[in-house]
Amino acid sequence: MPMIVDRRNVDFLLYEVFDTRALLSAPANESYDRETVAAILDTAQAIAEDKYLPCAAEIDTNEPEFVDGEAVVPPAVKDALTAFADAGFFAATFPEELGGMQLPWHIYAQVSNIFTCANTGIHGYAFLTIANANIISTFGSAAQQALYLPPMLEGRWFGTMCLSEPQAGSSLTDIKTKAEPTEDGHYRITGTKMWISGGDQNISENIIHLVLAKIPGGPAGVKGISLFIVPKIRVTDEGALGESNSVVLAGLNHKMGHRGTTNTILNFGESGECRGYLVGEQHQGLQYMFHMMNEARIAVGQGAVMSAQAAYLYSLDYARQRPQGRLPGEKNPSSPQVPIIEHADVRRMLMTQKAYVEGGAALMAYCAQLVDQEKLSTHSDDKKRIALLLDILTPIAKSWPSEFCLEANKLAIQVLGGYGYAREYPVERFYRDNRLNHIHEGTHAIHGIDLLGRKVRMQGGAALIALLDEMSKAIDEGADCQSTAAFASDLEGAVGDMMKATEAVLADRDLKRQLANATIYLDAFGHVVIAWMWLLQSIAAAKQMSTSTTGNSGPVGFSTGTNYPRRNRSSILLPHSTIPASLPRSGISSVYDALLSMKIAKSDKREHSSRAVTG
Amino acid sequence: MPMIVDRRNVDFLLYEVFDTRALLSAPANESYDRETVAAILDTAQAIAEDKYLPCAAEIDTNEPEFVDGEAVVPPAVKDALTAFADAGFFAATFPEELGGMQLPWHIYAQVSNIFTCANTGIHGYAFLTIANANIISTFGSAAQQALYLPPMLEGRWFGTMCLSEPQAGSSLTDIKTKAEPTEDGHYRITGTKMWISGGDQNISENIIHLVLAKIPGGPAGVKGISLFIVPKIRVTDEGALGESNSVVLAGLNHKMGHRGTTNTILNFGESGECRGYLVGEQHQGLQYMFHMMNEARIAVGQGAVMSAQAAYLYSLDYARQRPQGRLPGEKNPSSPQVPIIEHADVRRMLMTQKAYVEGGAALMAYCAQLVDQEKLSTHSDDKKRIALLLDILTPIAKSWPSEFCLEANKLAIQVLGGYGYAREYPVERFYRDNRLNHIHEGTHAIHGIDLLGRKVRMQGGAALIALLDEMSKAIDEGADCQSTAAFASDLEGAVGDMMKATEAVLADRDLKRQLANATIYLDAFGHVVIAWMWLLQSIAAAKQMSTSTTGNSGPVGFSTGTNYPRRNRSSILLPHSTIPASLPRSGISSVYDALLSMKIAKSDKREHSSRAVTG
Repeated sequence: MPMIVDRRNVDFLLYEVFDTRALLSAPANESYDRETVAAILDTAQAIAEDKYLPCAAEIDTNEPEFVDGEAVVPPAVKDALTAFADAGFFAATFPEELGGMQLPWHIYAQVSNIFTCANTGIHGYAFLTIANANIISTFGSAAQQALYLPPMLEGRWFGTMCLSEPQAGSSLTDIKTKAEPTEDGHYRITGTKMWISGGDQNISENIIHLVLAKIPGGPAGVKGISLFIVPKIRVTDEGALGESNSVVLAGLNHKMGHRGTTNTILNFGESGECRGYLVGEQHQGLQYMFHMMNEARIAVGQGAVMSAQAAYLYSLDYARQRPQGRLPGEKNPSSPQVPIIEHADVRRMLMTQKAYVEGGAALMAYCAQLVDQEKLSTHSDDKKRIALLLDILTPIAKSWPSEFCLEANKLAIQVLGGYGYAREYPVERFYRDNRLNHIHEGTHAIHGIDLLGRKVRMQGGAALIALLDEMSKAIDEGADCQSTAAFASDLEGAVGDMMKATEAVLADRDLKRQLANATIYLDAFGHVVIAWMWLLQSIAAAKQMSTSTTGNSGPVGFSTGTNYPRRNRSSILLPHSTIPASLPRSGISSVYDALLSMKIAKSDKREHSSRAVTG
Repeated sequence: MPMIVDRRNVDFLLYEVFDTRALLSAPANESYDRETVAAILDTAQAIAEDKYLPCAAEIDTNEPEFVDGEAVVPPAVKDALTAFADAGFFAATFPEELGGMQLPWHIYAQVSNIFTCANTGIHGYAFLTIANANIISTFGSAAQQALYLPPMLEGRWFGTMCLSEPQAGSSLTDIKTKAEPTEDGHYRITGTKMWISGGDQNISENIIHLVLAKIPGGPAGVKGISLFIVPKIRVTDEGALGESNSVVLAGLNHKMGHRGTTNTILNFGESGECRGYLVGEQHQGLQYMFHMMNEARIAVGQGAVMSAQAAYLYSLDYARQRPQGRLPGEKNPSSPQVPIIEHADVRRMLMTQKAYVEGGAALMAYCAQLVDQEKLSTHSDDKKRIALLLDILTPIAKSWPSEFCLEANKLAIQVLGGYGYAREYPVERFYRDNRLNHIHEGTHAIHGIDLLGRKVRMQGGAALIALLDEMSKAIDEGADCQSTAAFASDLEGAVGDMMKATEAVLADRDLKRQLANATIYLDAFGHVVIAWMWLLQSIAAAKQMSTSTTGNSGPVGFSTGTNYPRRNRSSILLPHSTIPASLPRSGISSVYDALLSMKIAKSDKREHSSRAVTG
């Protein structure tokens, strides 16, 4: 078993749980089929095993240094990223006309997973560059795209996102970086940015910073934030490198983990003119930046899952090899020791890791698939529904893994015991790496507030309803099969509890108390979502197992034929048509009431008495 | 507020929650009163702030190094421990005839807390030396005591505990280190020990290892383990340092945290004769080592609480200082930012830390007090009851803080956001330090098995009954006061749930599944114990608050007079006399049945209907 990917599980997610075949059959993806996808994953795995994995411990120990005003990164980082670039992965998701592979996001997410699992500190540079190029390709002018995208997509220039400042971390409204217009068309940038990942390095030929700044005279707060392209080295109109652009590395932050990725404090325009180039329109900067946030936040969730997966695979392998102790009942102290995987508590720790890691991986795959489906969808209602699902799932996808996959990392250390606590073994590093994910791309609390304060209420509860509808489909399908019916019933009960909790929290008129519950709500909501992911996986597994035990003559357990059409049972939730198109915010709770009473009635009818919501 | 101790909370625990006055009034403690105790704590705090705290970050960065076969420790460690020795703290708990201060353990625990909170990596050396000296003073011969104890209690020689080996971590039955008798009376020791904290250093003049080894021809397994004194440098009969004793440092382990304490691999007798001196009798080694385990394990719990307390105090201070964002409802982006302590989720994180840290600190103080009470008690039934309480609480005291105070550390990082993840701030270090505590002195799982497999069942459930009796006293007392009645009722419900869970787990005939539940049971049991500690604290606070609001004219809320005698209500639990003295193991569950039905009946009578156990 490789230590950076479980290819069987990737195939299970792509082709048995989710319908990747349908995605690949879309005209835009005509160059891809299961075989070409496998070949791409083979390439990714080979590069990651050859270039990313072997230097992961070294980069953690010999982290980037501040030398003569520049960040100096160990040479292995450049080697690894050169291989990534040579394989064309910087451009993987971009259209062919930009030299891209036009790879669906759903597939690229699996590529990205492999590199993240092997060495999250190195993959950070590529992640930021691709996210940056995405923004320029969406909102930049044709000239900006022509100038900056080709070298970025070739992996010669890297990109960063410059949002935070020392006095403005979570509170972007308080940024002070200033952008003053000049007569030459560019802006003069002055200010200090903090926590900038990849803000300086000696890997790429140039660094393209995307900087949030305020144009004097603009609106106060976030409404006055604009977005600028700020190259480290100025670029001539022909794309050649020119003079320094006065972006000065003021210092490196030394982190607990993720040490391969430099984390910097940058001064703009302190030592000379720093030129910035407005992206799109003035004062729209935050909107542009946040347009790409779904993907970026899902990618953070992926990172959290992968740091845990790396630890899970390692500790699983260790538990199979390490002899220690004997089974209960074995009285002879001279009998051979057993591998620790045979001990009940070690199994518990491995199974808990598996539940978190593979539950998280399924959610990530589901979300990545939604990103593609939203792009490909030609039906406006469908596009809207997918967008709503992504809206409500994004805070979960970002946050749940950062909490519970970190817990998995803690357990991986415990499986190794003292060895797990020693830096000679990798699992403590994965734990340190993963602790970052609660913090960046919006803290855990901010996503709780996003979910409870915005996403659950938006458009009259439309996103929540879209999600509940998807869950109810899975519950219906799971209920039809003997081996998944109990899981379906459990999920049904949990969804009911979640809805009651939602109603109770939103009914609270004390806003501070409501917000104090937001993080707890986020975690609980995430558990229900992950349970749904496990139901989907158990349904897929049940189908395969029934097929394999009976040949192709029809499944055991499922009540219907090989294509498993669901019985035409009424949804346990309100059909969309009964939800008022636009519901006043104050009316939200009555919708939950309605949903809840429908649910209870349905549960009673099914006689899932032990698990049904009873009050 | 100091960053290493909350003296107000220490006083609260010592004099308001627990009856330290009674302890100090015992003849053995006649040299101490509240004022002398305060002076001792002042001294500890001054040394810790002056010598321990300032070098904590430095020692984490410049950890001990392996140089020419020896462990070289930063000089600040020696400075700190010299100050600790000069104040007489190595001998603090030892009797006067050994030059000790005869300080009650309950008080010394508070001293130890201060040093641990300031710099756990340095305090480790003292902790090990004191634990080692305790074993020699209990089981060593008069000659051994005369030879080794004086320099150890003066802090000139340090001590270690050498249990684990590379192939035998948790499974001590598999140790291979050999002790062959010689005609000269000593034993020849050969073998390799692993994970030995303080196993080598350049601080003390000598190192006295306590080594578990097997004498050839002895019984197999743990019954053939003996305990030996093995000095690093041989000691003449007059106590002078002689030749090297062939204890060779084979290497240092590099840990995630606790970096100030060297962690070593030691080879005994590889390069020449290594002399060991038998402690007590042959084959009794494990029993001797475990005799001191209650104190050692409680000390690990204290360490976990203190690593979390250091982070809690720091993050609390930070939250009061750091301005970021505005309160909900504040629409003006130009209004000043508020300190983050005003944000609901930051308050939640601080309060959660407080619940874990101060709940854990109360349990540690309670246990330390029991250690003294057991020693002082002259009544055999009382001594037995206290010993049972210590037996059942020790796995909780060791383990609960390592799980939930680590969680507190995680939250402290989150309060600081990106700063929390940076090594320029101390909170990530506390998190790394604390992760050790699940692992050493018996892993988390081993304590779960100890609790469920041994402590809960021992002597016909006597330890559990003793504990439930103490809890029921608190519930009775809490129920009498308006401001604590709800907490008492909550605890009563939780105790009922715990008893049902105990019964269910013990009734499971699948031993593997029973053991797979042991860790979860440990965590849940711990929560109930900590809830009890909070009830005790809330009762103490309610008494003080009612006294302060009404002068000394009598408490508000409590139904009785200033001394708060409890109403003569029947215990909610079975009186001791109704428990059969010796209950067959298979009969355990019927005792729980009886306890449970008594409890339910009592609950019903009280009409705590909403919280009472209903099934």
